[in-house]
Amino acid sequence: MPGNTFGHVFRVTTWGESHGPAVGCTVDGCPAGLPLDVADIQRELDRRRVGQSRVSSQRREADEVQILSGVFEGRTTGTPITMLVYNTDAKSHHYENIKDRYRPGHADYTWDAKYGFRDWRGGGRSSARETIGRVAAGAVARRLLATFGITLVGYTLQLADLRAEVFDEAEIERNIMRCPDARVAALMVERVDQARRELDSLGGIVEVRARGVPPGLGEPVFDKLQADIGKAMFSIPAIKGVEIGEGFGVAMLRGSQNNDPFIRRDDGTIGTVSNHHGGILGGISTGEEIVVRLAAKPPASIAQPQQTVDRDGNPVTIEVHGRHDPTVLPRLVPVAEAMLALVLADHLLRQRLARVTWEDRSDD
Amino acid sequence: MPGNTFGHVFRVTTWGESHGPAVGCTVDGCPAGLPLDVADIQRELDRRRVGQSRVSSQRREADEVQILSGVFEGRTTGTPITMLVYNTDAKSHHYENIKDRYRPGHADYTWDAKYGFRDWRGGGRSSARETIGRVAAGAVARRLLATFGITLVGYTLQLADLRAEVFDEAEIERNIMRCPDARVAALMVERVDQARRELDSLGGIVEVRARGVPPGLGEPVFDKLQADIGKAMFSIPAIKGVEIGEGFGVAMLRGSQNNDPFIRRDDGTIGTVSNHHGGILGGISTGEEIVVRLAAKPPASIAQPQQTVDRDGNPVTIEVHGRHDPTVLPRLVPVAEAMLALVLADHLLRQRLARVTWEDRSDD
Amino acid sequence: MPGNTFGHVFRVTTWGESHGPAVGCTVDGCPAGLPLDVADIQRELDRRRVGQSRVSSQRREADEVQILSGVFEGRTTGTPITMLVYNTDAKSHHYENIKDRYRPGHADYTWDAKYGFRDWRGGGRSSARETIGRVAAGAVARRLLATFGITLVGYTLQLADLRAEVFDEAEIERNIMRCPDARVAALMVERVDQARRELDSLGGIVEVRARGVPPGLGEPVFDKLQADIGKAMFSIPAIKGVEIGEGFGVAMLRGSQNNDPFIRRDDGTIGTVSNHHGGILGGISTGEEIVVRLAAKPPASIAQPQQTVDRDGNPVTIEVHGRHDPTVLPRLVPVAEAMLALVLADHLLRQRLARVTWEDRSDD
Amino acid sequence: MPGNTFGHVFRVTTWGESHGPAVGCTVDGCPAGLPLDVADIQRELDRRRVGQSRVSSQRREADEVQILSGVFEGRTTGTPITMLVYNTDAKSHHYENIKDRYRPGHADYTWDAKYGFRDWRGGGRSSARETIGRVAAGAVARRLLATFGITLVGYTLQLADLRAEVFDEAEIERNIMRCPDARVAALMVERVDQARRELDSLGGIVEVRARGVPPGLGEPVFDKLQADIGKAMFSIPAIKGVEIGEGFGVAMLRGSQNNDPFIRRDDGTIGTVSNHHGGILGGISTGEEIVVRLAAKPPASIAQPQQTVDRDGNPVTIEVHGRHDPTVLPRLVPVAEAMLALVLADHLLRQRLARVTWEDRSDD
Repeated sequence: MPGNTFGHVFRVTTWGESHGPAVGCTVDGCPAGLPLDVADIQRELDRRRVGQSRVSSQRREADEVQILSGVFEGRTTGTPITMLVYNTDAKSHHYENIKDRYRPGHADYTWDAKYGFRDWRGGGRSSARETIGRVAAGAVARRLLATFGITLVGYTLQLADLRAEVFDEAEIERNIMRCPDARVAALMVERVDQARRELDSLGGIVEVRARGVPPGLGEPVFDKLQADIGKAMFSIPAIKGVEIGEGFGVAMLRGSQNNDPFIRRDDGTIGTVSNHHGGILGGISTGEEIVVRLAAKPPASIAQPQQTVDRDGNPVTIEVHGRHDPTVLPRLVPVAEAMLALVLADHLLRQRLARVTWEDRSDD
Repeated sequence: MPGNTFGHVFRVTTWGESHGPAVGCTVDGCPAGLPLDVADIQRELDRRRVGQSRVSSQRREADEVQILSGVFEGRTTGTPITMLVYNTDAKSHHYENIKDRYRPGHADYTWDAKYGFRDWRGGGRSSARETIGRVAAGAVARRLLATFGITLVGYTLQLADLRAEVFDEAEIERNIMRCPDARVAALMVERVDQARRELDSLGGIVEVRARGVPPGLGEPVFDKLQADIGKAMFSIPAIKGVEIGEGFGVAMLRGSQNNDPFIRRDDGTIGTVSNHHGGILGGISTGEEIVVRLAAKPPASIAQPQQTVDRDGNPVTIEVHGRHDPTVLPRLVPVAEAMLALVLADHLLRQRLARVTWEDRSDD
Repeated sequence: MPGNTFGHVFRVTTWGESHGPAVGCTVDGCPAGLPLDVADIQRELDRRRVGQSRVSSQRREADEVQILSGVFEGRTTGTPITMLVYNTDAKSHHYENIKDRYRPGHADYTWDAKYGFRDWRGGGRSSARETIGRVAAGAVARRLLATFGITLVGYTLQLADLRAEVFDEAEIERNIMRCPDARVAALMVERVDQARRELDSLGGIVEVRARGVPPGLGEPVFDKLQADIGKAMFSIPAIKGVEIGEGFGVAMLRGSQNNDPFIRRDDGTIGTVSNHHGGILGGISTGEEIVVRLAAKPPASIAQPQQTVDRDGNPVTIEVHGRHDPTVLPRLVPVAEAMLALVLADHLLRQRLARVTWEDRSDD
Repeated sequence: MPGNTFGHVFRVTTWGESHGPAVGCTVDGCPAGLPLDVADIQRELDRRRVGQSRVSSQRREADEVQILSGVFEGRTTGTPITMLVYNTDAKSHHYENIKDRYRPGHADYTWDAKYGFRDWRGGGRSSARETIGRVAAGAVARRLLATFGITLVGYTLQLADLRAEVFDEAEIERNIMRCPDARVAALMVERVDQARRELDSLGGIVEVRARGVPPGLGEPVFDKLQADIGKAMFSIPAIKGVEIGEGFGVAMLRGSQNNDPFIRRDDGTIGTVSNHHGGILGGISTGEEIVVRLAAKPPASIAQPQQTVDRDGNPVTIEVHGRHDPTVLPRLVPVAEAMLALVLADHLLRQRLARVTWEDRSDD
């Protein structure tokens, strides 16, 4: 059964291979009447594009998006929104010499095991280029969320042992690491430069937050909000860990410390004094900020010689050249935001189904 | 849209409230011809039952399961398997005095926010009693997996700051903490006793492993094996973090350290020298052991007085009495195993759809 | 992939075999806050029950339904509603002598072909007894629809060549054929008696109508309202044809005859002068009455000797004794109504997702 | 919830508006390793194209398809197959004068009722041009079916009162009506010419058959093979009735006439003497020919003046000019075949999930 669709009522299907003609997505389930401009999409794609800085890889493509359906006179029509980006800078010959050798840490072996063969050009569909479709779809989701007062922010929290100590939101998009701590960001850039010189790569942690999420989103029992967030984040290439709120830190806490007391806020609504729970209780949003962290492994593509095997199992040495990121973190930020946006848009709509009578809360 | 179903082709729907007439599940999509006995189900339910030991809560029910459909002459028929357990020891009056007060760390407030009201008796559907359906369904999944040579093991890895240092698999079911390190298990029990005396609760970490998983399971791009595992684990009550393989540890590793070199094993198959990747690459199983960790928060129900609000937002003090676990870990183990079994059974079947021609690998 | 679930957001899963312990269903996705009483369910089950009259079979069971979950203090809670009926009058020995012989017109052979074996007792899951779950779920759907002013009526339109010529709605539940034409109903009863004497059975046509359906229900392009109705009706045992509005009659009409002119109704809303379209245009409801007809084959169980083969393909003669309906029509009526109710409830809720802002129209 | 996806494991999502930039589809779930060439797709698209003959409308487009993903070195890779056709001959000005007037028999009013507004250019997404995506996807499905020895044939059975009396399969693609009876085909063409002169349109019936379908396809109880076929056919624009096998004719038959006796065929397999059941019993294929008929209403677009209302409900007269088919039948044939192919491909794959062990039957 195919696995290229995400979401239940706000659904995105991505398609396309790294070196095929194009990559793209179809968003099905976006409600009619949402103002949408191609610039809304392009802005987010520009944020994820490679070749943006010296910490990222050097593939140079404009990644210019086209909207092929679902928008009429500047508004969504309720029909599927298909968006695509043609691939223009695919250099498949870089990959020919490794097409029969399994790169360690990559999907080469497992795709062969699954399908019997694979499109080896640039990683085929396992390439991070697939995330273009996610970011385009996420941009539609963000537009919808914004209408209801929900905003997202993501940033690099940690690279190797360097962790942001200051949270200056305005700083995030100012530095090439997308780190909210200017001082630590500078150290991170140095560390990336060093790793590149050493033909190696670095892991790290990205954090994403959502604000303005109304209480009530999330569906017991399997589609809890954190369950769909967990799935969304673990579906991003390279992610090996996901936390909500206090995350693994809860192991060290007692109930008396971890429980967040409820209070009445000044505006009469109910909130919590602290936010160990990360905005979700019992699988449903509380109205507090949703806080998600994801751990990204160091990119598997390194130029050092590595031991591996070929398709027949013979031991071989491999060196992975080409245009690769020594760290995935800055480009991961818009992808993680997009995935969180997709989850929230889906659950925002699903909440309309929860009660016999329902009142909408659009501020539009 | 309802969220009570898990899985794509091997699907389980759970239903039931803590103090309603019964809890149960329907498994739809189990292939025909699987030998299945009610004892296979009961054994797993007995492992999750409360009142098993002094570290668990004191609700005393036999939790005797009935199979109502889908099995004929000892084999599954390919039709839905419905199983149920009647609730016999529900003491709803324990909850009457707190039905209008929001317990910190619980789902009371968010369920009211979502649905407008809730079944407050014993937590209603947000009760951990819902996991009976998961464990029953998981037992069917395990039976299917066993047919293909796949086995699972789970255990308590860490309670507060106490972490198992020895892995003695035979020890796991011998101690009431389900910890593979006998010495640390004893310390954990002491720590639980202490927490109970102090009217408090403790968090911790459970680890689950799957062995014998063939390479090729997992569906790019959104239904990656780790994505569905992440969703499964985050859907369990109290879980705030999930890791695969190296998990958050990847943040501190370099590519040259984290990449697992491929080798040819003695039996001619391809494997890896190390297992930082936790058995999954590119969202697809490699054949190495699948390793998952999940962080469980300290149970929210503590007998200390806590500050909170009532339905109207008025500040009130609450004390949560009744039969509650000071730690959820030992009972979490069979639930986590069940969820992993559900994911693997689903993907084992889905893999049959991946190629035009397909050969099955049952050892039955 | 399992096929025991119907609906997208208002979902019903049925389960159970004719001679297993019980049959039932789970409704997932019913919104919270709907007043629901077990009597609402029992009333519909009583309408479909066998042994009601001399035109129906003689299996005698009370078919008493239990609600096991999802209702609290007389209202739905938004959680799954599981309902079951225990089987009490199963006489499996009637079937033992034909368990290896394929009854013509029945599912015996195809179930063996699909699953390798089958529960042969009373037809197992292919028995019409499975429709108990549908009718129970349909009763919940009807309760929801009624809240929004939508009502359904079904009846026997035709038996063999006897077709109702008068539509007297009050007459329908007065005669055992559920035919709206008292005179024709009497002829039908005679015809059924004759067929029984001749050890034969009769086909016919049931019609179902829905009133008060607001314009706008139905989802382009594959989940058109008529597509989901078509699926619903064809999923009922014995159905071989389905029509919407003019149905097959459109083959003989010209566009100038078949097009229904739009008009402004007295209340200012838009309607059509005629209703060839049967309440659906472009897959979306118009607000006019929805009209559906379904053709039911003569029951395959007849007591005459018939030629067939056994499991090994050997020619054998078979006589199907037991308690069988010479016509399925009167009992088909509540099943067809239930299926239409399920489709409409599903699409009523889905329509809440169609626009960025949405106003509900409950009259509750 | 979106309705633009069809199928469960072999899934197609179509997208695009009549006068938008492009129309297309994504096929997700096609197994890896299927030989596929763009010519396989183009051939079927050419069959549905307009402007083919004097019985069809005059929109002139090459409808040249591009495959953007999912195929590598002539074989499917198991990843999504996206195909598109750019719209090149859209003349939207034809529609400007009727954008606020509701064409009788069309989806104008219902789309406005659903979404609040609509893309009125050429019918937007309710245009039959959407079926390009279906036919492209169906061509992939046919390629898969052919590998397993399953073939399809469709034809015009009846136009108005003219019904084919001879079945000469070789004749079908020779005449512009796609009628298997050459003599009747000629009469049909005359009748179409006459209708065009009279500014009117004609209804009719298409029949589709599938051969070589193995016994065992179809999923009890809701996803019966005829249920998914019913949904598929009713999702095609203009369809108001669907029959399987004997269809509505069963109303007039007795059980002793309608039951098809089982026999052992010469090759040792089990079959039936007659085929009233149309290849499906109990929702599962028998191995006999699958026979489906669908009734298509006369096209709603006629050039005669018609009474209707505008968006505000004011009575207006409308004349629908432009390029319209006086009959939809010949172009409906490839669409109906495509839909049947999609259903069968889906169920062929789903059958792999039915048993614990499974042996594939590809003849490839």
